[in-house]
Amino acid sequence: MSDQVLERGGQRTLDIDPGRLLRRIAELARIGADPATGGITREGFSAADRAGRAYLMDQARTAGLTPAVDAAGNIVIRARPPGSDTPDSAERQVLMMGSHLDTVVNGGRLDGAYGVLAALEVLQTLTDSGRDTACEPVAVAFANEEGALFPQPFWGSMAVAGRLAALPREPADHHQRPLREALRLAGGDLDALGSVCWPAGSIAAYLELHIEQGPVLERSGSRIGVVEAITGRTVLTLDIRGSAGHCGTSPMTGRHDALTAAARVVLATEHLAAERRLCRVATVGRLDAHPNTPNTIAGAVRLTVDLRDTDIWRLTGAEQALRRMLRTVETATGTRIEVTAETRSDPVRADLRLRAAVAHAADALDLTHEALPSGAGHDAQVVADLAPIGMIFVPSLGGISHVPEEDSRPEDLVAGARVLLRTALDVADGTVL
Amino acid sequence: MSDQVLERGGQRTLDIDPGRLLRRIAELARIGADPATGGITREGFSAADRAGRAYLMDQARTAGLTPAVDAAGNIVIRARPPGSDTPDSAERQVLMMGSHLDTVVNGGRLDGAYGVLAALEVLQTLTDSGRDTACEPVAVAFANEEGALFPQPFWGSMAVAGRLAALPREPADHHQRPLREALRLAGGDLDALGSVCWPAGSIAAYLELHIEQGPVLERSGSRIGVVEAITGRTVLTLDIRGSAGHCGTSPMTGRHDALTAAARVVLATEHLAAERRLCRVATVGRLDAHPNTPNTIAGAVRLTVDLRDTDIWRLTGAEQALRRMLRTVETATGTRIEVTAETRSDPVRADLRLRAAVAHAADALDLTHEALPSGAGHDAQVVADLAPIGMIFVPSLGGISHVPEEDSRPEDLVAGARVLLRTALDVADGTVL
Repeated sequence: MSDQVLERGGQRTLDIDPGRLLRRIAELARIGADPATGGITREGFSAADRAGRAYLMDQARTAGLTPAVDAAGNIVIRARPPGSDTPDSAERQVLMMGSHLDTVVNGGRLDGAYGVLAALEVLQTLTDSGRDTACEPVAVAFANEEGALFPQPFWGSMAVAGRLAALPREPADHHQRPLREALRLAGGDLDALGSVCWPAGSIAAYLELHIEQGPVLERSGSRIGVVEAITGRTVLTLDIRGSAGHCGTSPMTGRHDALTAAARVVLATEHLAAERRLCRVATVGRLDAHPNTPNTIAGAVRLTVDLRDTDIWRLTGAEQALRRMLRTVETATGTRIEVTAETRSDPVRADLRLRAAVAHAADALDLTHEALPSGAGHDAQVVADLAPIGMIFVPSLGGISHVPEEDSRPEDLVAGARVLLRTALDVADGTVL
Repeated sequence: MSDQVLERGGQRTLDIDPGRLLRRIAELARIGADPATGGITREGFSAADRAGRAYLMDQARTAGLTPAVDAAGNIVIRARPPGSDTPDSAERQVLMMGSHLDTVVNGGRLDGAYGVLAALEVLQTLTDSGRDTACEPVAVAFANEEGALFPQPFWGSMAVAGRLAALPREPADHHQRPLREALRLAGGDLDALGSVCWPAGSIAAYLELHIEQGPVLERSGSRIGVVEAITGRTVLTLDIRGSAGHCGTSPMTGRHDALTAAARVVLATEHLAAERRLCRVATVGRLDAHPNTPNTIAGAVRLTVDLRDTDIWRLTGAEQALRRMLRTVETATGTRIEVTAETRSDPVRADLRLRAAVAHAADALDLTHEALPSGAGHDAQVVADLAPIGMIFVPSLGGISHVPEEDSRPEDLVAGARVLLRTALDVADGTVL
């Protein structure tokens, strides 16, 4: 077992332990696994999630590190001995690395978990090396990133960013069970969320390693993705109202078919991105027709339009173009379309210096890389309120995620962790920022 | 209260009792009515349906007529005394008039019920007049036309046509409760369905009066519709298979979006009838996307295409054009589309002599009329296996049906029954066929 790797130019330098990383990924994947589907279900603050959290803290302790749980349930792992592990007692700025342990229902083994275990691996490697760095490296597992059970995604990172200090109501899960008790069981405290926020300037940088969850790297053959930005997202619910009628007795003339209106909206939404290129991606993923019977013209349709781009002006422009298009569809089909904005998250740019550091690390390790946007959301976009962020992607097999088949090649998982270590070294040494 | 009406030309002739007809329609409408919605639910062979059947038989008996229930649960009302009421004992051919009493869930008060009560009214009027006719007039209420609870629409008329003699399995409702007991409670006998079939030549003609259930007569202002044909119907289930993917991480290029493929199918289906005029109407009324979440590209869609025309060759041609179009959609979207034929019912033409008799009756009553197809299915299309059929439509307010708001103007309901009486007189007298 060697902790040295030969870089381009012949220089020997620090390396992670690939076998240890892959073993931990395999071990964590057993927690919450469904033998029937192969899928993993560790919804944030569920019993399976708590088991996953216990595994992580046990691995950290075994490695001689010190895990602690903050009031929001985030696990913060440091090299320093207990007693000096509160953020505001830190003398040095922190280099934070991490992701989340929770999953969607019947998800895969890598989304989130890979980034946390790689952060632990890098922290352990740095700590074991005894190297003194300008920043203190810290590994973090943010709580409830997915929001699968308790419907507040990015729960833990939002608490760190001070965005959960004033909750509008007592949080509960989809079955109206209160978060308070589930959070307590995970080591948190709903009444102390205000204490979770990290002071301005305390975090020098945040690095998140993640699977791409899309097909870009696999198609291009690049080993490493250097994230330029996390896309902003506009989610609109459209309520289309036409007139129901009998499929057989209603002539084509004079119909007000909400489903043909919806079909025009679906195609025009695709057109916005695919042909007009007004935003990066545009999708209708959900569509419900009413009454939805073979024998009746649809009287109403509700559908969801999802627009994403890394540029806020393009995102806004695409929405405006969509809304103009809806007026045309209303006129052509004799329907009324009501638009409700469900989500508007702004794009978040990765720090240019951190992007360069990631690219430099990949070059040093002789790994091909390319810049790309993140189409999915990540804790990094929330931590960006507090600190410059950088994200590293590795290829996803088949470009798929949030399903049991989600996977990446072991050599890519190892390569990603090596890029994280190398980038972390440069950042912690103070040569990047 | 007069049973004489002044016809064009000044001749006094037989008339129905408008008040009695409208009273019975109002009384029957209370059975199975939901006070909250105003809708009526008398699913075939349900308790409410049995109450409606009892009401009809009570009215028939009070009128001095003889109702009987056949093994399929059809109510057959005759003027002759009990003991001579089996079809094969009839010396004269029968002029059958009727429709059905059962409704869809939360339907209206006229679909079916109007035709049965008007047939009773005409039979009572003819019987009371003492007039001797070449054919014996008979009123019938076919059982379970809608198939709302026990999923065999046209149950009663199919039994009459001999199409239920060999059942593939023990029939049951949507909750797996057997039809046998429900049929027994309604006076039927599942083991004697073969006895229900009427002999060839025993029925001289079948006349069905019905609300239009569409907007054609209301738009044109015609008082009476002379049905040319009951449209044939081809119902296809399409299973579209694409690839699910993350809305944010999957670039537009390389997607296999089952919902954009479905949208093309929906619009091309409309186009078949509305622009290319290959068939009279073409509709997608049901569409289910999977997984149907805002954040995921649809990996699969199932939808239903409903094509109708009164010409079998046009119906076949429209389906062929649809199938060619599906190949184009598959190629353009990178999806696979599987087609399953659910229903193929051939168009049924009304008898030309009966059509002329209906038009003549309307003329004689000074009622404007027009020829039109029936877009919906009716018992008449099944009875057409046995006998020439004629159908009479009256305007539907707003063109709607199968909803609580289904209605027609009282004067149109009366006019329709008068046309039925006048047509029945001409047919029964042997001057038409």
